[in-house]
Amino acid sequence: MPEVAIFLGSDSDLPKVKACFNIFNEFGVSFETSISSAHRTPEKIKEQIETAKDRGIKVIIAVAGGAAHLPGVIASHTTLPVIGVPIETQIAGGIDSILSILQMPSGIPVATMPSGQAGGANAALYAICILSLCNKEYDSKLIEYRRKMKEKIFEKNNRLKSIGPLEYIKELEEKK
Amino acid sequence: MPEVAIFLGSDSDLPKVKACFNIFNEFGVSFETSISSAHRTPEKIKEQIETAKDRGIKVIIAVAGGAAHLPGVIASHTTLPVIGVPIETQIAGGIDSILSILQMPSGIPVATMPSGQAGGANAALYAICILSLCNKEYDSKLIEYRRKMKEKIFEKNNRLKSIGPLEYIKELEEKK
Amino acid sequence: MPEVAIFLGSDSDLPKVKACFNIFNEFGVSFETSISSAHRTPEKIKEQIETAKDRGIKVIIAVAGGAAHLPGVIASHTTLPVIGVPIETQIAGGIDSILSILQMPSGIPVATMPSGQAGGANAALYAICILSLCNKEYDSKLIEYRRKMKEKIFEKNNRLKSIGPLEYIKELEEKK
Amino acid sequence: MPEVAIFLGSDSDLPKVKACFNIFNEFGVSFETSISSAHRTPEKIKEQIETAKDRGIKVIIAVAGGAAHLPGVIASHTTLPVIGVPIETQIAGGIDSILSILQMPSGIPVATMPSGQAGGANAALYAICILSLCNKEYDSKLIEYRRKMKEKIFEKNNRLKSIGPLEYIKELEEKK
Amino acid sequence: MPEVAIFLGSDSDLPKVKACFNIFNEFGVSFETSISSAHRTPEKIKEQIETAKDRGIKVIIAVAGGAAHLPGVIASHTTLPVIGVPIETQIAGGIDSILSILQMPSGIPVATMPSGQAGGANAALYAICILSLCNKEYDSKLIEYRRKMKEKIFEKNNRLKSIGPLEYIKELEEKK
Amino acid sequence: MPEVAIFLGSDSDLPKVKACFNIFNEFGVSFETSISSAHRTPEKIKEQIETAKDRGIKVIIAVAGGAAHLPGVIASHTTLPVIGVPIETQIAGGIDSILSILQMPSGIPVATMPSGQAGGANAALYAICILSLCNKEYDSKLIEYRRKMKEKIFEKNNRLKSIGPLEYIKELEEKK
Amino acid sequence: MPEVAIFLGSDSDLPKVKACFNIFNEFGVSFETSISSAHRTPEKIKEQIETAKDRGIKVIIAVAGGAAHLPGVIASHTTLPVIGVPIETQIAGGIDSILSILQMPSGIPVATMPSGQAGGANAALYAICILSLCNKEYDSKLIEYRRKMKEKIFEKNNRLKSIGPLEYIKELEEKK
Amino acid sequence: MPEVAIFLGSDSDLPKVKACFNIFNEFGVSFETSISSAHRTPEKIKEQIETAKDRGIKVIIAVAGGAAHLPGVIASHTTLPVIGVPIETQIAGGIDSILSILQMPSGIPVATMPSGQAGGANAALYAICILSLCNKEYDSKLIEYRRKMKEKIFEKNNRLKSIGPLEYIKELEEKK
Repeated sequence: MPEVAIFLGSDSDLPKVKACFNIFNEFGVSFETSISSAHRTPEKIKEQIETAKDRGIKVIIAVAGGAAHLPGVIASHTTLPVIGVPIETQIAGGIDSILSILQMPSGIPVATMPSGQAGGANAALYAICILSLCNKEYDSKLIEYRRKMKEKIFEKNNRLKSIGPLEYIKELEEKK
Repeated sequence: MPEVAIFLGSDSDLPKVKACFNIFNEFGVSFETSISSAHRTPEKIKEQIETAKDRGIKVIIAVAGGAAHLPGVIASHTTLPVIGVPIETQIAGGIDSILSILQMPSGIPVATMPSGQAGGANAALYAICILSLCNKEYDSKLIEYRRKMKEKIFEKNNRLKSIGPLEYIKELEEKK
Repeated sequence: MPEVAIFLGSDSDLPKVKACFNIFNEFGVSFETSISSAHRTPEKIKEQIETAKDRGIKVIIAVAGGAAHLPGVIASHTTLPVIGVPIETQIAGGIDSILSILQMPSGIPVATMPSGQAGGANAALYAICILSLCNKEYDSKLIEYRRKMKEKIFEKNNRLKSIGPLEYIKELEEKK
Repeated sequence: MPEVAIFLGSDSDLPKVKACFNIFNEFGVSFETSISSAHRTPEKIKEQIETAKDRGIKVIIAVAGGAAHLPGVIASHTTLPVIGVPIETQIAGGIDSILSILQMPSGIPVATMPSGQAGGANAALYAICILSLCNKEYDSKLIEYRRKMKEKIFEKNNRLKSIGPLEYIKELEEKK
Repeated sequence: MPEVAIFLGSDSDLPKVKACFNIFNEFGVSFETSISSAHRTPEKIKEQIETAKDRGIKVIIAVAGGAAHLPGVIASHTTLPVIGVPIETQIAGGIDSILSILQMPSGIPVATMPSGQAGGANAALYAICILSLCNKEYDSKLIEYRRKMKEKIFEKNNRLKSIGPLEYIKELEEKK
Repeated sequence: MPEVAIFLGSDSDLPKVKACFNIFNEFGVSFETSISSAHRTPEKIKEQIETAKDRGIKVIIAVAGGAAHLPGVIASHTTLPVIGVPIETQIAGGIDSILSILQMPSGIPVATMPSGQAGGANAALYAICILSLCNKEYDSKLIEYRRKMKEKIFEKNNRLKSIGPLEYIKELEEKK
Repeated sequence: MPEVAIFLGSDSDLPKVKACFNIFNEFGVSFETSISSAHRTPEKIKEQIETAKDRGIKVIIAVAGGAAHLPGVIASHTTLPVIGVPIETQIAGGIDSILSILQMPSGIPVATMPSGQAGGANAALYAICILSLCNKEYDSKLIEYRRKMKEKIFEKNNRLKSIGPLEYIKELEEKK
Repeated sequence: MPEVAIFLGSDSDLPKVKACFNIFNEFGVSFETSISSAHRTPEKIKEQIETAKDRGIKVIIAVAGGAAHLPGVIASHTTLPVIGVPIETQIAGGIDSILSILQMPSGIPVATMPSGQAGGANAALYAICILSLCNKEYDSKLIEYRRKMKEKIFEKNNRLKSIGPLEYIKELEEKK
């Protein structure tokens, strides 16, 4: 039974939050995924959200761009925590998506994640932070995940120390 | 039977679009007004919109600020023309409201009006432009309305010509 | 006899609103198209707009970028409903085009559509929403158009359910 | 034992998130409050965060403006869910606060709330959404809270229906 | 016979460019002033501009805010140099006015001045820079004007040197 | 003897204002061109500007990007009309260049042109508008230039009328 | 002999950086202050900067708003470290001042401080950070200054702990 | 013993500030380089900064993008002068990075450099300006560096004078 429901405003947003799926798989969190337009399939969303608690859903992630109403529309139908991920656009790189998700009125909260590559990853990690409150195993995995992030940085630093910045830049360019 | 339905995200928006009500009264257009939050009363909105055509509504005006989802949420439930009016906010003067209303996805159009004082007036006038297509009387009134706007400018010009800009500025300051 | 007149500030804008022409063709709406610069051919525009009602035009679409004065200049010559489509630019992705079309003064309304790909499509659909008020056939087609949009999303969801998000992303990347 | 820890970058931010304290009191959620500058008292913050789980804290709220590093700095020391509230500033109304809190790198999530009046309220409500996952009583209260919000809107609508928008505006102006 | 024609989009803009009138008076430049809306009185503008050269006009100043089409519309009817002054608005302090005036298409130039207090003054001074090319007297006056500006700064510096910055601030506050 | 002096902040800006050189050549306006950094070669600029009037220069064009101080620095040394051209940058497409050139203080005017492709062309044309005041031949050429612009648009319209927008789009795509 | 030279674009900027003078007085750093417009008194600035090293100046602070060229113009005449302070304006709260000071070209560095109240204070403190490198006494004072900042926050926290946030807010409101 | 410590938020930022390393090598300034995330390795940063003075570090450069907390977090642990370099992002070209580094609260100063290519170069040059105060040799090198910059511009000007702008543009295009 999935613990997290992920809604995307368009199937073209799927690759932009690929990190989200990978992190849930890595942590062993079960999730369901739907393409759901706030404006084209409003009844379907309402139905999916109103049955979410019964399906065992504990956290909802909503990914959208432009007049990104999806996270807010979902939040209007549930008291489950909703996490919004703004997709980058042409307008100043996605300021329309960010503000449409962020500036919710008093009473109906949505948690906004960064736009761009980090958004999908952090949505998954934030959902796991929430799930960790009732699931100690997830918390141990989060702590381990952070330890590994540190280690990767220390490894890069060791390489940087040993070859210097100009050689390191060359190596980066060769990897491309 | 009202021809226009006006929805406001909050009763505090009423004074900001006062010109809208005045213009409809001046043109003799009947309208209904509701306070309706896209996020707090979503079912009520759906119900009101789905019965709108049967109630004789031909045009819908939706006024909202911040993550101004109201016009888009309304447009998702109807094929009637929806006009959105962005309310000014602290974020760059209302750029959040503007972009949340404007950047609708392909398929569900919303017509965005200017923010600020002009928004309410132009929403009413645009609704009347639309109603004029099936109602010649409204078109005559629109043409007359524009003629009067011109006349007012000509009158101001006459005053300006006769007293010069510096005296005119003094008069303006005294009127305050 | 065309029901809709489309004006473009430059012929380079034509491909950016291709969806507009396709939707009108799909719905069987007759339209005329002109390249007309608000600044380079102002007299020609005035002439075309002043004769528009007599030619049977009911709605006008104006497409422009930068200091996008075209929709406002057109609206100054007619009481027909004018729909403005902002073309994307370098300035924050087109915020100049958006604000130049949107921030019309009280008295002369213009209906602004989203910038980018959705703008041309929604301009056509909004024009049809307006025409539907006097033409039931168009309204049926709009309702059918929306039903098909939903169906396409449901089909995508079926595919997503059956193969999962990571496979779906692979399929998307292969299609490119 | 407090369930929520609230950190503010400056005591001058206290009045700007007053709604946060009121909502926690209304819901009977116990909380602690500290003034803590990410830049002036970094060691104190680290200490308070590292002992937070042991003190029973389940959710952290961090309120900050300008280069609003506080929520991110807190999130770097814990896997508890961190909610960031941007304080309005002179820069486009607080776009600096919003982006400094929002644009966190992949790996260290922060949930950003709206700026302005709604930020404090929604931070409290989002914290309660999270706490509700392990506490059914909070969920019942949230549902009741939303029901009351709807009722208030319905009451306002009844008043609006009975006296019309222009009288309603007068009443609003008299209340000021 | 006036050498400069000043057009304002609204009589409420008159006080915002008061410095413009004062500078022309100080330099002895004759000018005419009209209130002329690009959208409400387009024919009147066309007529006034087409006869401008015959009336002896050498430079045109156009003051406008919001979708500030006035300078561009004027430039479309003449080859006289047109100077645009953006009026401050709520949208980021007037970025809509600035971009609507500035981003003219290739072929129809408009010279944009700063928004705010400096705009009216600099429009007058720039017009005089242009007129100076054929009128040596104006150039001498411009050079004298700049000399006086310098002197005023030197005087302020003398005061600042003698009393120090903290006393100077007190004097400024007392003057308010 | 050159009538116009063009200053560029960097030689990499030369291709971005190519239209400027072409238009001066087309109109037979003689000009001189220098690469001159406001910050790297301030003395050289001062020297070139202070001798400009004696060299016969009547108008100065200054092209710069980023903290685009060049036009303002030039204007501080002369009463000749200075035209500033903002070069596009990464910051919102060049809003830094635009505002650095535009927002000059009261007393030292600079005329700002659009950013992007249109900036170079309009700088040249605006310079010619100014020169036309003392040179009737230039004015005739400007009027002829505008007539040709119109004609080009009419020709494009004829093609558009004869083949329709979808064929026209195909032709455009083939030309690329 | 002053160690720091402070230049202000206008005497109206003096109160906005009052904290700067107070901090220098508190630390016992001697400084000189001038009002110096980059555009109105360019020769004076050049002279003052070229003699700065000989006068014993080690750090220069330049305060300016709008097209805030002053810090960059100063930096073009010296290799002393230049600190720029952007003054708040109407344009998005001062984004014009910020970008005009910040976006200096490669080769001529300027250190930009925050806009608003913090700018003047941090300019002084940053100057002292620099001076500390050759003056241990200043460094001890800086460390002491930071210790006191912490203490003030701890005191506020003690008050907050003892009376709770709602009482604290009341006290703040009474102090106004 | 290194005089400058350079911290980068991510190894992917290394190529973006390559000029920084090159300039330090050219001037013979010794430096150390670390990859250090404000959020992923906060303890490591604290440790490195607290020992910096003892290691002989005199200036710190911190390079970061997005919610670029690194420079501010470093400044919270030291009284050494900290120079922040904002990395370009999708959000309006990096306005998030700029404001997150720039808008530091009163008391903890950070010196912000331009975003983009110039940021790395100017960070190095500004560090050398600071080091020059106690090291005359560096100052001579800075003066020589600026002389060479001028000379390069004069050489480009000589080429431009001899072949004209259109030929120069061709040469530039051939070099690409």
